[in-house]
Amino acid sequence: MTDMLPPGSTIGILGGGQLGRMLSVAAARLGYRTHVYEPAANPPAADVAHAVTTAPYEDAAALTAFARSVDVITYEFENVPTSALDLLESLRPIRPNRRALATSQDRILEKDFLASLGLTTAPYAAVTSATDLDTALARIGAPAILKTTRLGYDGKGQARIRAATDAPEALAAMQGAPSVLEGFVDFAFEVSVIAARGLSGEVAAYDPGENVHMDGILHTTTVPARLTPAQRTDAVLLAARILNALDYVGVMGVELFVTPAALVVNEIAPRVHNSGHWTQNGCAVDQFEQHIRAIAGWPLGDGSRHADVEMLNLIGDDIAQVPALARRKDTAIHLYGKAEARPGRKMGHVNRILRRG
Amino acid sequence: MTDMLPPGSTIGILGGGQLGRMLSVAAARLGYRTHVYEPAANPPAADVAHAVTTAPYEDAAALTAFARSVDVITYEFENVPTSALDLLESLRPIRPNRRALATSQDRILEKDFLASLGLTTAPYAAVTSATDLDTALARIGAPAILKTTRLGYDGKGQARIRAATDAPEALAAMQGAPSVLEGFVDFAFEVSVIAARGLSGEVAAYDPGENVHMDGILHTTTVPARLTPAQRTDAVLLAARILNALDYVGVMGVELFVTPAALVVNEIAPRVHNSGHWTQNGCAVDQFEQHIRAIAGWPLGDGSRHADVEMLNLIGDDIAQVPALARRKDTAIHLYGKAEARPGRKMGHVNRILRRG
Repeated sequence: MTDMLPPGSTIGILGGGQLGRMLSVAAARLGYRTHVYEPAANPPAADVAHAVTTAPYEDAAALTAFARSVDVITYEFENVPTSALDLLESLRPIRPNRRALATSQDRILEKDFLASLGLTTAPYAAVTSATDLDTALARIGAPAILKTTRLGYDGKGQARIRAATDAPEALAAMQGAPSVLEGFVDFAFEVSVIAARGLSGEVAAYDPGENVHMDGILHTTTVPARLTPAQRTDAVLLAARILNALDYVGVMGVELFVTPAALVVNEIAPRVHNSGHWTQNGCAVDQFEQHIRAIAGWPLGDGSRHADVEMLNLIGDDIAQVPALARRKDTAIHLYGKAEARPGRKMGHVNRILRRG
Repeated sequence: MTDMLPPGSTIGILGGGQLGRMLSVAAARLGYRTHVYEPAANPPAADVAHAVTTAPYEDAAALTAFARSVDVITYEFENVPTSALDLLESLRPIRPNRRALATSQDRILEKDFLASLGLTTAPYAAVTSATDLDTALARIGAPAILKTTRLGYDGKGQARIRAATDAPEALAAMQGAPSVLEGFVDFAFEVSVIAARGLSGEVAAYDPGENVHMDGILHTTTVPARLTPAQRTDAVLLAARILNALDYVGVMGVELFVTPAALVVNEIAPRVHNSGHWTQNGCAVDQFEQHIRAIAGWPLGDGSRHADVEMLNLIGDDIAQVPALARRKDTAIHLYGKAEARPGRKMGHVNRILRRG
C-alpha cells in the first residue's frame, strides 16, 4: 500500500492514440495527471491529457524534459526506439518493464520466450535471405505467413505464402527487413486474454474474448468466447505464467488461437489491447483503470464480468453509423475524436450489451 | 438527427470543478473536445480538457475568445454573472438556456416558477429588512431558514431561525443581501431526481436517489430510494414538468423533500448534480454523458438502472481512506485530482455496488 503513487502525481504515456486517450481518462479518475509524448501533432490523447509533448523519439532534450515532469512512465505503443527507452529509464521507472517491451518488439524473441515457458506457438523460423526462406518453407510447409520480426501492427509488414512459388514476392515485401516465417495454424477461432499484474505480484485476468478480424484489423470481440471451462482455465493460467515470467507490471493482451489440440499463442502485446475494450461496459474496473492501478501500485480492481458484450470497432467510414448507433439503448459509444475518417483508421468502437447479470 | 453536433466539435464549459471534469471526459468519449473557462488557476477539469481559459467572468476579451473557439456553451456552475452570459449568448448557443439559469439563480424566482406549475414548495417570503423578516416569521413561523436569494451552495449563505429571537442574528448573517425566509418542512427524507431533456424535447429521468447530508454537504446518495411506486412516478413526472416548462436542454437535478402528504420541491440545479454521481456505476449512460448527449443534439441514452448503488462523497481528509477503499471489490473510485485536502472540500466520491441485476 505504501507503494501507491500519491494523488496528484503525473503518469507519462508514450504514444497519444486512442489507447493513450482512454488510459489518460482512467488515470484522471484515480486522481492522477497525465503527460502524453507523441511525435504526431494533435493526437487523440491530447484532448484529455494534462500536458502533451509533440516531439520525435530521437529528441533527447524533449525526452529528458518529459521524463523529469512525470513520476512513472508507461506506453500505449510498443515500438518505441531503444535509444529513447534507455534515456527515459535512466530518469524514471518504465512500467511494464523493458524486458516485456524487448520481447514483444521482436517476433523471434517473443516466440523463443514463449517456447521457453513450454507454451505452444505456430512453427516458426528466422528468415533473412531467399535461402533461409526456402529452407524454412521446406520444414514448415505452405500455407505460411512471412512477417518482419519488428514493427508489425494490424496486418502491416506481412505477406501470405499460399505455395512455394509465392516466396520471392513475399520476401520482396519485407523490403530487406529481418523476418520470420510462421506456419499456418488451423484454428477454430481466436481469443484474447487481457490480464494484469500488480506491483505486488498479484495477477488478475478478464474472461477471454473471442475475436473476429476483417482485412487484418480487429472487427469484433465477443464475451463469453466459445471456450470449454477447461480451455478458459488454461487460457487464463497461461497468461498468468507469461506475466509472472516477465515480472510484468500492467495490463497485457495475449492472443490465442484455439485448436482442438491446444491453445496456440499468436502474440503478446505489453499494453492495453483493442480486444479488451469490452471491459469498459462489462466489468466494474475496465482494462484502462486496471493498467493504471497496476503501474501506480494500487491493488488490482474487480475485473469480474457482469454482462455479455460484443465490442465492434468503427473503422474509417463506419463513423457514419454513429447517429443510428446512438439510438440503440443496448449500445455504448466510445469515439476517439479523430478529425479525418481514412480507410482502415480506427475511429471509435461500440460495446453492445447482449445480456446483463 | 441532423441537429447532432459534428464529431470533433468543441464544447465550452463554464466552470472547471469536478463536474466540469466529469463532463469533459464524457464529451471526449462522444468524440468532442472541451474548452473550460474558469477564473481559478489549475482547476480539476483542466487535467482532461483540450483547452483551458483562466480568466475572470468580467474579462470580455477572454469571454469573446472562448466563445469563438467553441460550438456550444454549457456550464457546471450556475452563478455565472449575467453580463458574461449576455456576451457569450450573443456569440454561441448556451444550453441549458438562460431562463433555466435565471430561475435557479434566484430562490424567489425559482419558488414562484415552481408554484406557477402547481408544485409544492416550502412556504416562503422575500426578506430585505427586519420588518420583512418579522412579518414573514409571523406568517410562516419558526423554525425556519433565512437564505440569500442568490449564490447559495452547499449550505453557504444560510442561517437557521429556531425562534423569533434568532431573527436579528440571522438577518445580520445575510450581510444586507436580498433574502428569502423558508418555512421548515417536516420531511421524512430527501430524494433527487436527475432528469434530462434532449434538443428534440424527449425527456428521460434516472431512478430517484435518497440523499443524506452532513454539515450541509451531501454525504451519501442511495438508490433505490425508499419511495412507494406512486411517489416514484410522481417524482419523475414532476421533474419532467419542470424541464418541459423551461424548454430545458441538458441534465437537471431536482431535490425533493418527501413528506407523507406531498413531494415538496426543495431546489432545482440546472446542471449535472452531485446526487447523480451514482449513475456512473449504476446505469449504461451516466448523467455526464446524458448531459453531453442532450446539449450536442444526440438522442438521450439508456438511463435505466442495472444496480443498487450507494454514492459516498469523500470530503477533506476522507481522501486518506482511498488506499483501504481501493481494496474493496464492490467500490468504484472517482477522484478529482485536487492537490490540497481542505476541510469541507469535495475530493472525490465512491460508488459502492449494493446489488447487481
